[in-house]
Amino acid sequence: MDHVWSTYRPLLDEVERHIEKGVDSEVAIINQVARYTLQSGGKRLRPLLLLISARLCGEVKPNHLRLAQVIEFIHTATLLHDDVIDNATLRRGVVPARTIWGNKTSILVGDYLYTLAICQSVAMENTQINYALSTACRRMSEGETLQLAHQCHYDMTEDTYLRIIEYKTATLLSASCRLGAIGNTSEEKQEAVARFGLRLGIAYQIADDTLDYVAEDERFGKSLGTDIHEGKVTLPLLHLFENASPSDRERLREITGQRRIYRKDLTYIIEQMKRHHSISYAMQTAQRYTDLAKRELDPFKDSIHCQALLTVSDYVVRRGH
Amino acid sequence: MDHVWSTYRPLLDEVERHIEKGVDSEVAIINQVARYTLQSGGKRLRPLLLLISARLCGEVKPNHLRLAQVIEFIHTATLLHDDVIDNATLRRGVVPARTIWGNKTSILVGDYLYTLAICQSVAMENTQINYALSTACRRMSEGETLQLAHQCHYDMTEDTYLRIIEYKTATLLSASCRLGAIGNTSEEKQEAVARFGLRLGIAYQIADDTLDYVAEDERFGKSLGTDIHEGKVTLPLLHLFENASPSDRERLREITGQRRIYRKDLTYIIEQMKRHHSISYAMQTAQRYTDLAKRELDPFKDSIHCQALLTVSDYVVRRGH
Repeated sequence: MDHVWSTYRPLLDEVERHIEKGVDSEVAIINQVARYTLQSGGKRLRPLLLLISARLCGEVKPNHLRLAQVIEFIHTATLLHDDVIDNATLRRGVVPARTIWGNKTSILVGDYLYTLAICQSVAMENTQINYALSTACRRMSEGETLQLAHQCHYDMTEDTYLRIIEYKTATLLSASCRLGAIGNTSEEKQEAVARFGLRLGIAYQIADDTLDYVAEDERFGKSLGTDIHEGKVTLPLLHLFENASPSDRERLREITGQRRIYRKDLTYIIEQMKRHHSISYAMQTAQRYTDLAKRELDPFKDSIHCQALLTVSDYVVRRGH
Repeated sequence: MDHVWSTYRPLLDEVERHIEKGVDSEVAIINQVARYTLQSGGKRLRPLLLLISARLCGEVKPNHLRLAQVIEFIHTATLLHDDVIDNATLRRGVVPARTIWGNKTSILVGDYLYTLAICQSVAMENTQINYALSTACRRMSEGETLQLAHQCHYDMTEDTYLRIIEYKTATLLSASCRLGAIGNTSEEKQEAVARFGLRLGIAYQIADDTLDYVAEDERFGKSLGTDIHEGKVTLPLLHLFENASPSDRERLREITGQRRIYRKDLTYIIEQMKRHHSISYAMQTAQRYTDLAKRELDPFKDSIHCQALLTVSDYVVRRGH
């Protein structure tokens, strides 16, 4: 993966310059909050996907660099709203904007970044691009709402879980890939690349929901504790609820219903997950979606840029985003 | 004004049907919250302006009915977010969505309505329309942020106050008028209609900020109390702070800085406003913007639909929206 990052570093640096210059409101506090959040340690996975996808389908044009910035603005807008929704106190080890400037400012600067991104998209005067971005934004808000409506629903079906993560996460990864392909290749190949992004996004979110649980350090308890506290339903938890004995399920329900989460309860859940292989089940599911994603790249297998996307595919289910 | 409403009632009824059918998410809670907020007693001033403007410049086409719905969705999205920002417990005498479904759902359904509106705009495949709507949305978020950043700034200049209300309110009224004119008349006349909407929007917001203060019933104290409690700077308050003697200003500062607002303090402020003619100053300013708005309609004065817009202009600085 290091090789992929370094190959695309010059292009990503150009995207970075667009990101730095892109927020230019006459309202000073907007620039301050937006720039703070944009510089809070994101790896720029979505811009990377867009750029590789552009290379895969043709060439990287100036609009692609701009679109990579637009995608990152949309992603950042969702983070600003998510952090308010989740009462987050940390993101990627950094204090979120809501802690510094308050929830209200976070909501409004999120609105600003959303609408700025749409303005920039509209300025490109390309219907396909406008469609791809606006439908992705709508879908994401549906996914976030669906997730909120299913807080603590540990009896939801796996299909519902998959729908939530598809909408809230995979949609934007899919749009990133599609935007690299639009105007660069056939309709058919555009769809293939978009489907690749969608499958990959699902794998990515499952892995993201699961990987902290297998960390050796203190992240395990912390992530599990945070998820339970927020009523966030992850695939390992869902699997555990489905496979636990009736009496264990009763205890799990008590634990997840508590206002306070105790260390001993987390230990109990971890033991149960080990017993029922819930984490390996979740990671296998992520791997299955990665494999499905990779298969979508078959039409491109003669391209040297295909390998970069395959590498990214393995990377997202391993670690580090 | 009754005559204007009844003239446009058949068209507004068609818009209403678009509004009812327009929200069609597969996420049930989104439909519920969005429909509740859309049916919370708005008078549909923005759709009315769009329709009259279309008539003034040419004819009302099917897209205008759809755009009137789009504008109302955007307006409703801002209300959902505003109510969270303002901790509102009532809007137009109705309990807001945030009280029933919570702040988080309000934020996300606001996001949904914003992005749905943009999707519908994009589907019309008209660059001018996309520009008008997306830049209006961006401006509004700037206005809201500017307002939040200036909470309790009773020493702001009148120019700053005017900029805030232009961005947060007048922008969308201006876009409503422009959308009626796009494709229906010359560029020059489109600009005139847009400027009419902008001036009218400023008059509208000043009047809205002021008129409750002159009500005979209990609204006076309530509105003034709410504004002060929220740190909302209205033109009468701004005028009062500017014109009060140093010692009175000191007392005003103490009152507005309190956590609790007492009846006797409101009475004091009202007396001071009377003494300094702050309310009539604000209403004169509103009237000045109404006059400026009307003047923009000079190129249309031979049209019979011009009279409807003049009537609306007088209406917004009188009462009832």
